[in-house]
Formats: sequence, structure tokens, C-alpha cells
Amino acid sequence: MRLAPPHAPDALTVHPEIPYHQTANPNRAGQMPAREETPMAMNGAESLVRTLVAGGVEVCFTNPGTSEMHFVAALDRVEGMRAVLCLFEGGATGAADGYARMADKPASTLLHLGPGLGNGIANLHNARRARSPLVNIVGEHATYHRAFDAPLTSDIEGLAGPVSAWVRTGMSAKAVAADGADAIVAARTAPGGVATLILPADTAWEEGSGIAPLPALPERPRASDEAIAHAVAALRSSEPVLLHLGDRAVRDEGRRIAARIAEKTGAKLLAMTSNARIDRGAGTVPIERLPYPVDPAREVLAPYKHVILVGATLPVAFFAYPGKPSALAPPTCDVFALATPEQDQIDALERLAEAVGATADAPLPPLSRPDLPTAGSLDQDSIARVLGALIPEGAIVCDESVTTGRNFFPATHAAAPHTWLQLTGGSIGLGIPMATGAAVACPDRKVISLQADGSALYTAQALWTQARERLDVVTLIWANRSYAILRHELTNVGANPGRKAIDMLTLDDPPIDWVSLSKGYGVEARRVETLAQFVDTMTGALARRGPFLIEVALG
Amino acid sequence: MRLAPPHAPDALTVHPEIPYHQTANPNRAGQMPAREETPMAMNGAESLVRTLVAGGVEVCFTNPGTSEMHFVAALDRVEGMRAVLCLFEGGATGAADGYARMADKPASTLLHLGPGLGNGIANLHNARRARSPLVNIVGEHATYHRAFDAPLTSDIEGLAGPVSAWVRTGMSAKAVAADGADAIVAARTAPGGVATLILPADTAWEEGSGIAPLPALPERPRASDEAIAHAVAALRSSEPVLLHLGDRAVRDEGRRIAARIAEKTGAKLLAMTSNARIDRGAGTVPIERLPYPVDPAREVLAPYKHVILVGATLPVAFFAYPGKPSALAPPTCDVFALATPEQDQIDALERLAEAVGATADAPLPPLSRPDLPTAGSLDQDSIARVLGALIPEGAIVCDESVTTGRNFFPATHAAAPHTWLQLTGGSIGLGIPMATGAAVACPDRKVISLQADGSALYTAQALWTQARERLDVVTLIWANRSYAILRHELTNVGANPGRKAIDMLTLDDPPIDWVSLSKGYGVEARRVETLAQFVDTMTGALARRGPFLIEVALG
Repeated sequence: MRLAPPHAPDALTVHPEIPYHQTANPNRAGQMPAREETPMAMNGAESLVRTLVAGGVEVCFTNPGTSEMHFVAALDRVEGMRAVLCLFEGGATGAADGYARMADKPASTLLHLGPGLGNGIANLHNARRARSPLVNIVGEHATYHRAFDAPLTSDIEGLAGPVSAWVRTGMSAKAVAADGADAIVAARTAPGGVATLILPADTAWEEGSGIAPLPALPERPRASDEAIAHAVAALRSSEPVLLHLGDRAVRDEGRRIAARIAEKTGAKLLAMTSNARIDRGAGTVPIERLPYPVDPAREVLAPYKHVILVGATLPVAFFAYPGKPSALAPPTCDVFALATPEQDQIDALERLAEAVGATADAPLPPLSRPDLPTAGSLDQDSIARVLGALIPEGAIVCDESVTTGRNFFPATHAAAPHTWLQLTGGSIGLGIPMATGAAVACPDRKVISLQADGSALYTAQALWTQARERLDVVTLIWANRSYAILRHELTNVGANPGRKAIDMLTLDDPPIDWVSLSKGYGVEARRVETLAQFVDTMTGALARRGPFLIEVALG
Repeated sequence: MRLAPPHAPDALTVHPEIPYHQTANPNRAGQMPAREETPMAMNGAESLVRTLVAGGVEVCFTNPGTSEMHFVAALDRVEGMRAVLCLFEGGATGAADGYARMADKPASTLLHLGPGLGNGIANLHNARRARSPLVNIVGEHATYHRAFDAPLTSDIEGLAGPVSAWVRTGMSAKAVAADGADAIVAARTAPGGVATLILPADTAWEEGSGIAPLPALPERPRASDEAIAHAVAALRSSEPVLLHLGDRAVRDEGRRIAARIAEKTGAKLLAMTSNARIDRGAGTVPIERLPYPVDPAREVLAPYKHVILVGATLPVAFFAYPGKPSALAPPTCDVFALATPEQDQIDALERLAEAVGATADAPLPPLSRPDLPTAGSLDQDSIARVLGALIPEGAIVCDESVTTGRNFFPATHAAAPHTWLQLTGGSIGLGIPMATGAAVACPDRKVISLQADGSALYTAQALWTQARERLDVVTLIWANRSYAILRHELTNVGANPGRKAIDMLTLDDPPIDWVSLSKGYGVEARRVETLAQFVDTMTGALARRGPFLIEVALG
């Protein structure tokens, strides 16, 4: 996560710095209108794109408009930036989130003005909650044009603020490359976040500065000695202790160190309900997650006197319910942070392990990979076992299963080693875009996209990008034809639904035909209605390359 | 547009006020948990829904989540509010815009927290630019739950501000009905706008106040005598004058009065480039629009010494281009407002007509309905003639044709009388939702949705709502398989595109199969590749009821 100091971008990236007076492709320079640029200069857009590439930003998920045409033209001239076209901005922002989780560095987006940003906000919210580094580039009217209040004018900074860790509007073509370098650093500053750079068209088309050096990235702060001492005291008490892991602590290395501590002290481990990334499967430390529903979550936390947060945030209910508390740990419980998401969680765990003398690796529990089920009904349990048996080594599982997937974790602890990405911000419509971005980041790994049908309908356009880029993604649609979670929630809030309310939660009139929809976007698809069909189709889909969709009929 | 004074909602609506101590369906009251409500009280959500219904809000375009479940349950209990489920929030906000343009009163939305609002922002931007009255209801965490920063927590007011004329977060269940009444008035206050009411879950589930009275609507202000005198002086000069019409002035009555003035004084009439609604066709005053591209627009305005704005805003370029001005009228031209969109434009035109002695109706020009073309290629011109010949009387044309439709207006001046709705805010992805909302507002009128293919891909989910609600909408997809407008713009900005840039503007790999996509959403569809196929399929689609989609292959 540490970036190189200024003037040494080579340490960051495979792309050598290109002197700003040299165009990428001198053969094409003669075609360019003299008004715009000469072979000896580059405009703001090209200065920015070259700065991004030099700073390790190698992919741009785009849905551009008129005000972004100079940036598009610059992408054209610069080697080293892959442009991935999306049909909808939520596809671009969600893909950038998935990419960042797997690449541990930012991609950029390219969105069109305020409304384009608006369409990307839901998945920027998810990226913010995942703490994904992301350089979010939003085109804007030329600086002098804003005052004319043309139809597409809007308050872009106002829209960007709620989902961004950093927002800046470029003020000149000469400064925009440095703005881009600052955006990279802002995105990568721990714990990682959305850096929104607003790019007025004239800062793109006027003469630029050339590549800007990358400022130094601030070091990730270490946990305080007091926090370590607090955790040691809790672990040395005779009271029950939970190590609640999130962010970096939950990935693989963090779990391994936490397991040593648990083995030594008797503490228990638990992951957050929603995690940006867990590298798991056979050979790794299995971990369960805090349940989503309030009552089971409170039951899980009830025994503990101490909850040590390591990269995790306070365990709280997703939603408020009449008569139920927001905080899930018992009021008598001491909940405190060993290391916040901003801090170096691995370092904190290592210091804690050393302090309690937890030096030996914990033995892994004797879990075995489930057998492939061959008989029985097609339901959540049999699907979980199929996943446990079939997930291939190195797979990336993008999980937006919502209600269908609540039991997938136990059945896949001992699956082949794989990576599991979840919906972190609760805004449905991330799954298909996230799978798209993960596949761009990791072309040699199979991506399995577990997708609730209601949620899939927000951003299904990303299937087209999978087809266009020939991405190796198998999408499983859990076709229960309802907002199943809301049927449960309607009961939870104490309401007593009638026909009109039930209608608002039901998607069966008409039913979505996922095979047709997928074909419409250029992705081959099949519907399965029995366990045997599912196993057969899933096996086939995993054996081939390229995008494929399976509509899984659920009762 | 004038609302009734407080305590007299009957003047507003066909739904009589229901005393707040009486539930809509006493038979169901016994099933409700005592904790929530008794037959003698109603919660905040029900108080709000009943206030909306009493205030003339009869349709709610919904995409709810957990925090909105009490509102959904209240919709269930209250007669007089039609709930229309959308699969994506942009479908809900775009439909509310289309509804408002046709009904001249607000529908409400129901969106889920900040991300749900985010997904609705692009079409709220369009609604803002159309000045459509719209009560935008966004669910929020319970007031006490916000501090816990649960995953879906975000700055909803911050996101709502840029697209709203009015924003308020409900503070208590007792006050939320009055908040709703204020929202209706804010939405309907001239010139009309988006009123966003943020509804914390506990303000919905706790005991409410019952129906709140509707405050008086402010009167639409009249144009000043100075503005009238200024216009009279211009018209009495011997210099060329343009009456530039927008908003209410361009609908039908305004055009008729403006035509009288033109007939008397020699002034010319011109509509804005994008108009929320024009009622047009045979028997109405034909009017051309200011061209979208900068150079033709400047040519059109070049002859004038005076441009009188009536409901129109300053003629400005949609986008800035290197070396071209933002203002489209010549620098020497006197551009001034007779009446702003906020003011009473019909009154201003009437006063102006009287002042210049324009009392006689102008004769309509001798235009005749085009013959149905029977031979030739399928292209923009032949399509325009087919529309001119086939648009049925009373049809509502929702136009998001973008490049394909630039010449549709001249060929349809003498079509059967119809209403034409345009994309006002420039944010593509309005067309299918707008057609959906217009069809909900006017169930007895045929809706024809003219839709560019690239733009259609943002919000195609609204097709499902058309199928679900059996709406009478024929959607024509102009399948040129590219962002055609951007290919032109890339040249406009002076860039010289290569393969990578062209790829960003091309949608042919893979091609979208609109017949499959439409079938996926439950709407019957057919692809046509010749003029004869188009005429035949269009004729058939107009003769039946219910949603139908035609993919029109364009080269």
C-alpha cells in the first residue's frame, strides 16, 4: 500500500514515465488540428491520463458524454490505460469497486456531469463502505460555461460529497495533472476511499502541464500502545472475549494471527456481517459472520464481556425496528477498537499476539469439502453444497445473494481456496458490476457472481460489458421472483400486509425471463429448475471460459 | 394550478377527506398489533399517505426498502393512492416526471435511503429542468438510528439538494403529515419543482396526527408592466423580433396568443430546443424549435435585434466547444424576459397582445398531413413521414430520439392532434420511464415512445412496469448501435479519434438484441429492417392495446 516518493513513479507501475513533450504516437500527431495541440505539447486531458497511468491507474470504467470527449481522445493516444465501456454509470462505479478490491489499487471512472455521477452514486456508496480506492472522474462544463446554466448544469460537488473521501474541481489545464496525482493519493490513503475529480471541459482541452509527480502517500497509522494494552487486559481476564474482524484484518493473514491469539487465550473470532474481501477456503482459518437479522446477531454477541474490534466497526443493526436496540452487543459489554480501519491492523494483531505470547499457529479445524449432492430438491441448502463442492481454486465469488445466500458460508469453508466479496454498503445492484470489475482485475481467475434476482435488475446492463470484454464470469440468478427480504421486513416492522403491499414486493407479474434478458445483452444463458440441471449446467459453465448466466428457479 | 385554501381539500381532489380517527378498512383493524396502532389512531405513515391523497396526490411510483415498509403498509390501508412498482429508482422518478407533465399535478415517489435517491437523481434532474411538480419521498433510518452509522447511512439531504426546489427531513410522526402538505405546496408552487421529503422510519411508525390541512398555494406572479412595455417597444420598432417560447407559453393557448401578436407585428415564433410539453398537430399553431447544434442555432438567431423570452430561458449552447460562444443570440441582440417560467406567461402574452392591438386569431399555415410512405429506405426521413401519417389523435409522444429525431417536428406539424414531451434536462434515460408515467396519467391516450438505443439502456427496466400495469405504450427503439451523438461531438471538440475512442462510442460488440431484452421484461417485441416492415408493424401496434416494442434497424 505504500507509494513511491515524488519523481519516482517507476517504483509504482510497469509503465515508464513518458516525458511530457513527447506524444505517445508521433505518427498520429500530424493528423491533430493545430488549434488543439502540437507534437511538442499535450492538453490537460492527456496530461491527466498520463499522470494516472504513471500513478498505477491502468483501467478506466467509462460512460462518457460530450464534455468528456477530450478525455476519451486522450485515452486513445496513451498506452497503458484500458478503457472499459459501461452502458450505465452504476456499472462503471461498481466495476471500479470490484477491481479495487482485487487489485488493491484504484481504477478510474469516467462519468458525464451531475446526472452521470448520480447514476453512479449507489455503487460509490458501496465502494465507500468497502473502503475501496477509486479515482472517480466526472466531466463538467467548461469553467466559463457553467454561469449560463445550460440544461445539464448541476451542483456536481454537492452530489459527490456524500460518497467521496475527497472532492476537487479542476481549475485549469495546467493544474489538472497535479489534481489527478492528488486524487490517486487521496484514494489510496488508508483506509482507502473514493476521490472525486471534477474535470471541466476546458481543463481537458487547453494546454496542460505534462505528467505530474505523485505526492508521497501518508503512512498507515499504527494502533496505540494503549489499545494493545486494553486488548491484552481483556484477553487476560477470565471473561469471554470476541475478536471482531473486518477490513484488512479479516482477509487471510489477519485471520491467521487472530487465530493464534484465539488458540492461546480462548477468545473467539467473528467477521463482520458484510466484508469487502475475505480470502478463504481450504487451508485458511474459517470464520463465521455476524448474522444480518437483529435477534440472531444479539444472541451471537450475548455471551461476550469484551468485543475487540480489529478493522471492524461497531456491531449495529442494519435497520432500526420498533422496540429493538440499534447496538447489537449487550449494554454491559466492553466494545473497543484495537485498530480502526484507518490503522495498520496486521501490525496491531502481531503486537497483540506477541504481548499474549501467541506464537504458534493454530491448527485448522477438520473441515472437509462437501460432496456434490446428487439427489434432493433445488434449494438454498443444496445450492450451498454445490458451491462448496464446485468452487474452483482461485475463484472470486461476488456475493449479492441477499436472502438466498445466508447459509452459503458454512458450506464453503473447506471449498478450494477462493476469494469472497460482499455487498458492503447495503445498496443492492452491485453484484454484476462488481463481478465485472473483479474479472478485469484478475483475468486468470474464474469469477462466480451470486445474484439475487430483484437486486440484479438495478444494473443488469453490466452483463453487456462482460460479453464485450469476454470476461470469465458465471452469473447465478436466484430467481425467487420477489423482494424476499422485504416480505420478511414487512412482518418485522409490525405491519400486517394486504394485497397492495404484497404486490409491491412481488416480481412475478410478469416474471422476468432472465435467459432472454441475458441474451439481449449478449450473454449466453440457461434456466435450471432441478438440482441435476443446476449441477450439470454449473459444471459446464465452470469448464468453459467467458460469460455465462444461469437462472436458478427457486420456489 | 391554484389550490384550495386550508381545510377545503374537496376542491382539489375526488377523494373526500377521511377523518383521521377512522381507518380505511375497519375490517382489517383487528389484525393490527396493538403496539403499532389502534382503530382510533393512525401512525405517521398513514397520516402522510392520507394527507397526500387529500392533497390530490393519487399515484406513488415506488421502489421501497426496509425503512419504507410502514409507508408501504399504509398504502395498503388507504384508498385512493395507486402504487406503481418500479424495478429501478430512475424508473420511478422519470415516471413521476412524465405523470406530472400530463396530469399537471404531482405524483409521489417512494425511494430507499440515499442510494435509492442516488439512482433517481438523473431523472429528478430532468424533472427539475421540466419544472415538473413532484413529491419525492425518500425513506431514512429512524432518527435515533442515524448516529450508529449503519451501512446504508448517508447524507440524504446533501444528495437531494442539487435536484430539489425544497428539501425537508421529517422530525416526528406528529409533524410528518404537515410536512407532506408543505411538500405538495412546494412542488406545485410556480413554476413547479421537486419537493423532497425525507421520512425517518420512526416518523412513519409512531403515532401520527391524522390528515394535515393543505396550506394555500402562492399565486403565480404576473409579469411587470415594465416588461410588457419593453416588449411593446421592441415590437413597434422596425427591427426583427423573435418571440421565444417555453414552459406554459409553448403549450397551445400561449402559442395561439403569440401567433396573434406575430400576425399583427411581423415577429417570428420559436420554441426552445427542449420543451417539457407541447400540445400540437392539426389545428394548432405550428412552431419550430431552436436547433441543438451551436452553428445552426446561431444562424437561426442571427437576424434578430430583439429576442423576447416568454417562459423560455436564455438561448445557450448545451455544451461549450473550443472557439465557440456559450450564448447563441448575437452580442448586439436585446434578449429580455417578458415572463419568466415562474410568472404567469399566458397573462403576459394576453396583455402584450392587447397592448399591440393583436385581437384577431392568426390563420394557420396550409400544412397537410404527410402521406404514408410506401417505398424507399428505412431512415430518419421516412420514419418522420410515417409518424406524421400514423400518430393517432390524442397520442402522447415521448421523445428521446436524440440524433435520430432531429427532423421529426416538421413532418408532424399537421399530424392528428397530439402532445409531445421532450428530454428537458439532457440526462438520457428518461424516455421509457416518462412514457410509463404519461400512460399512468392518461390511460385513454396512446403513448408513443421514441427512443434512441444508447439512451434506452439506462432505464429499460421501466418496460417491466409497462407490462405489469398493462400500459398502452408503443416503444420505438432507434437501433443504430452507437452513441451517434458522441461520434459527432468527438469531431466537434477537435479530437481526431482512433480505434480506442471509436470503441467507446460503439454498441455493436455484442449488438443489443432488443427483442430479447423486451421479452425479458415481459413486453412483446419485433425487429423491423425495412420501411414496409416498419409501417406494417407500427400500424399493428397502434391498433392493439398494451405495451409493444419495435426495434427499428438503422444503418
